[in-house]
Amino acid sequence: MKVTIHGRTRHFRTVAFDTKRNAVLLIEQRLLPHEFKIVATRDFRETAAAIRDMIVRGAGAIGATAAYGLAQGAWAFRGNDLANFSAHVWTVYQTLKNARPTAVDPVNAMNDVCAAMRKGKTVEEKKSLALAAAEEFANEDARHCEEIGRHGAKLIRNGMKVLTHCNAGWLAFVDVGSATAPMYAAQAAGKKFHVFCDETRPRSQGATLTAWELAQQRVPHQIIADNAAGHLMQRGEIDLVIVGSDRVLGRTGEVTNKIGTYTKAVLAARHKIPFYVAIPLSTIDWHLKRGFDIPIEERNESEVLGAWGTLKSGKRAYIRVANPSSGARNPGFDVTPSELITGIITPMGIFKPRDLWKQRKKLGYPGG
Amino acid sequence: MKVTIHGRTRHFRTVAFDTKRNAVLLIEQRLLPHEFKIVATRDFRETAAAIRDMIVRGAGAIGATAAYGLAQGAWAFRGNDLANFSAHVWTVYQTLKNARPTAVDPVNAMNDVCAAMRKGKTVEEKKSLALAAAEEFANEDARHCEEIGRHGAKLIRNGMKVLTHCNAGWLAFVDVGSATAPMYAAQAAGKKFHVFCDETRPRSQGATLTAWELAQQRVPHQIIADNAAGHLMQRGEIDLVIVGSDRVLGRTGEVTNKIGTYTKAVLAARHKIPFYVAIPLSTIDWHLKRGFDIPIEERNESEVLGAWGTLKSGKRAYIRVANPSSGARNPGFDVTPSELITGIITPMGIFKPRDLWKQRKKLGYPGG
Repeated sequence: MKVTIHGRTRHFRTVAFDTKRNAVLLIEQRLLPHEFKIVATRDFRETAAAIRDMIVRGAGAIGATAAYGLAQGAWAFRGNDLANFSAHVWTVYQTLKNARPTAVDPVNAMNDVCAAMRKGKTVEEKKSLALAAAEEFANEDARHCEEIGRHGAKLIRNGMKVLTHCNAGWLAFVDVGSATAPMYAAQAAGKKFHVFCDETRPRSQGATLTAWELAQQRVPHQIIADNAAGHLMQRGEIDLVIVGSDRVLGRTGEVTNKIGTYTKAVLAARHKIPFYVAIPLSTIDWHLKRGFDIPIEERNESEVLGAWGTLKSGKRAYIRVANPSSGARNPGFDVTPSELITGIITPMGIFKPRDLWKQRKKLGYPGG
Repeated sequence: MKVTIHGRTRHFRTVAFDTKRNAVLLIEQRLLPHEFKIVATRDFRETAAAIRDMIVRGAGAIGATAAYGLAQGAWAFRGNDLANFSAHVWTVYQTLKNARPTAVDPVNAMNDVCAAMRKGKTVEEKKSLALAAAEEFANEDARHCEEIGRHGAKLIRNGMKVLTHCNAGWLAFVDVGSATAPMYAAQAAGKKFHVFCDETRPRSQGATLTAWELAQQRVPHQIIADNAAGHLMQRGEIDLVIVGSDRVLGRTGEVTNKIGTYTKAVLAARHKIPFYVAIPLSTIDWHLKRGFDIPIEERNESEVLGAWGTLKSGKRAYIRVANPSSGARNPGFDVTPSELITGIITPMGIFKPRDLWKQRKKLGYPGG
C-alpha cells in the first residue's frame, strides 16, 4: 500500500524480495508507527530471526517471508550436488519453521515452494522454481486480499461508521490486508466513511498499526479505548464491524481472534449491528471440531501491567502503569461463536459462518 | 483502610482534618500506586485546588473534602462580624464548588455544613458547627460504605471470582469504598475469593488504584485488560460483577459509570452472571427521567493516545502509544440500562434497580 515518507508517496509491500542481493525486504513493524524502515535480511538465518523477533508478524506476511526465506536459502547454495542441496534446503526449512513453531502459514507457504522445487532436475532449475513459487505465494496472498476487498466493499455504504479491532491490515499480509481490504476498496470506489480503531490492549495494535495504516491511506479514523465501543453502539455511532481472524473453524464457523473480539461481537449482536470477519482461505482450520479446543495462549503479564510508547524526546520506552505489587492474567485470544457473526468475507465471496462446511470445495478444503 | 509503608501498617482515611493546623489531609492519589503521600492543604484555596487537580477524586471523597474545606475556610475568618463572615463563607463555598463544577457531591456536602451553621448565633458558634457537620458528613460516608459492605458481603461466597471495573474503592470515599466494601467485609468474615480488576483504560484506575487498594488489604487479585473479561466469563472464570457508579437514576434504575461498565453488564447478562452496582444514597439522582439525558463527558484524547506510568528509573512519564498522526474519541462514561443490573447495593439494603423509586422514602428521596 501507499506510504508517505518525507512528503514522498511510494507503494510498498510488507514483504518483498531483492534478487540482486538475495535479500528479503521487510517493513520493520516493531518500530511502527513511530518510524518507517525497511530491513533487508541477507541470509535465511537472518530471515528466520526476523520472523522470530516479530520484525514481521501476521499470517500472510510470515507465510510469504518464510517462502522467500526458503528460496533465499536455496539460492545461497554453492555447487551442483543434488543430495547436498536437498540436505541444505532441509536445514533452511527447519530453521524457518522453528522461528514461530505454532504458526501454520510459514509451513504451508514453504510446502508450496518445496512442491515447486520437486519439478526441477538440476540445482539451478530448483533454485529458479523456488523463487518463482515464493513470488507466486506472495502475489496470491495480495490477490486474495484484493478479492476480500472486492467482496467486502459492498458492505460499506456512504456515511457509515465502521469499527475494527486489532490489526488485520496490510502489515499482517503481503499487501491490502483482510479486515482493512473492504475499507481500501470502498475508498478506491469513492465512498466516504469513518473508521473507529479499537486501541486493542494490551499490545495496542489498533492504536499503533491499524491507525498508522489508515493514516497512510488517508482513511478518516479515530482511535477509541476498548471500553468505548459499547457506548458508541448504544448511541448509534457504529454501523458495521469488520475484524480479521487467526483461525476460523471450517466445521463450526467459530472465530478465534485477538482478545476482545468476542466482546465486540456480543455488543454488536445486542445492537443488531452487522459483524463480519475477513479472512484468506489459509485461515480456515478444517480439522478442529469445536472452538473450546482452540488453545488460548496466555501471554506475559508485563503486557497488561504496562505499555510501550515514545517519550517526548522521541525515545522508545516501557512504562509500568499498574500497581507494582499486583500481577495480571493475559489471555491473548478469544473465540466468537458463529451465531454472533453475520458473515465471513473470503476471497471467494461472503458466507454465513455455518455455511463454510457446505461450501468447503470452493473454499479449498484439502479433504475429499 | 490499612496501608503498609516501610513495613508498618496504619489506618488511613482518604480525607481527614487536622484541627491544630486547620488543614485538610488528603492522600495524594495522583502518585498512587507508585508513591503514598499525605498532602495537607493549608487554606480553602489550596483545598479547592486539590479537588480541581484531582489530588482527591471520587464522589464521597470530594464531598468530604469540600465539607472540610468549607469548615477550614470558616475557621480562617478573623473577627466577629456576622455579615462579613457570611460573605467570606459564600466566597469559600463558590471557590470549592467551582473546583469540579459538574460534581454534585461537594455541593450536597457543603449544603449540609451551611444548614448546620445556620443554627449558630455567633461566628464562633458557626465555626464549631461547621467543623462538626463536616466531621459528621465524613463519618456518615464511612458508615454508609460499611453498611454497603455488610449487605453486599452476602453475595460473595467462598471460592468465587469477582470482577470489578474502575475504582469505586475507599480512595473514592472517605473509607471502605462502595464496590470494594462487600469484598472487604467478606474478607473480614474469613471468606476466600479472587478479584479481577479491569485495567480500565484510558485512565487505568483499575490497574492503579483498585489493584493498589486490594494489594494493601491483601485481597488476592489480578489485573486484566478490558478486552479479557468476555473470554473469562465464557470460560466460567467470573462468578460475580460488582461496580460503583457516578449517578444512578432513581426513577429508572439506569446506572452511569466509567466507560466500559455497560460492556461488562452486557457480557454478564449473556453469561447469566450477577451484576451488582454498589452506591451510597448520595449517588441517586431522583430528578432525571431517562439515562439518555445524562451528559457524557468527552475527555481529552491524549488519555486514549498514550499512558502514564513509571520508567525503570522510577521517574513518572507519559508515553505516546498511538500513531502520531491519529486522533481519538474519548467518552468518559456510559449508561447501563436497568434490565442488565441484578441489584443495587445501598447502605439500606439491596434493591432491584426498578424498585428504587418504590423504595424512595427509605432511600432518602428529598421530595414528597
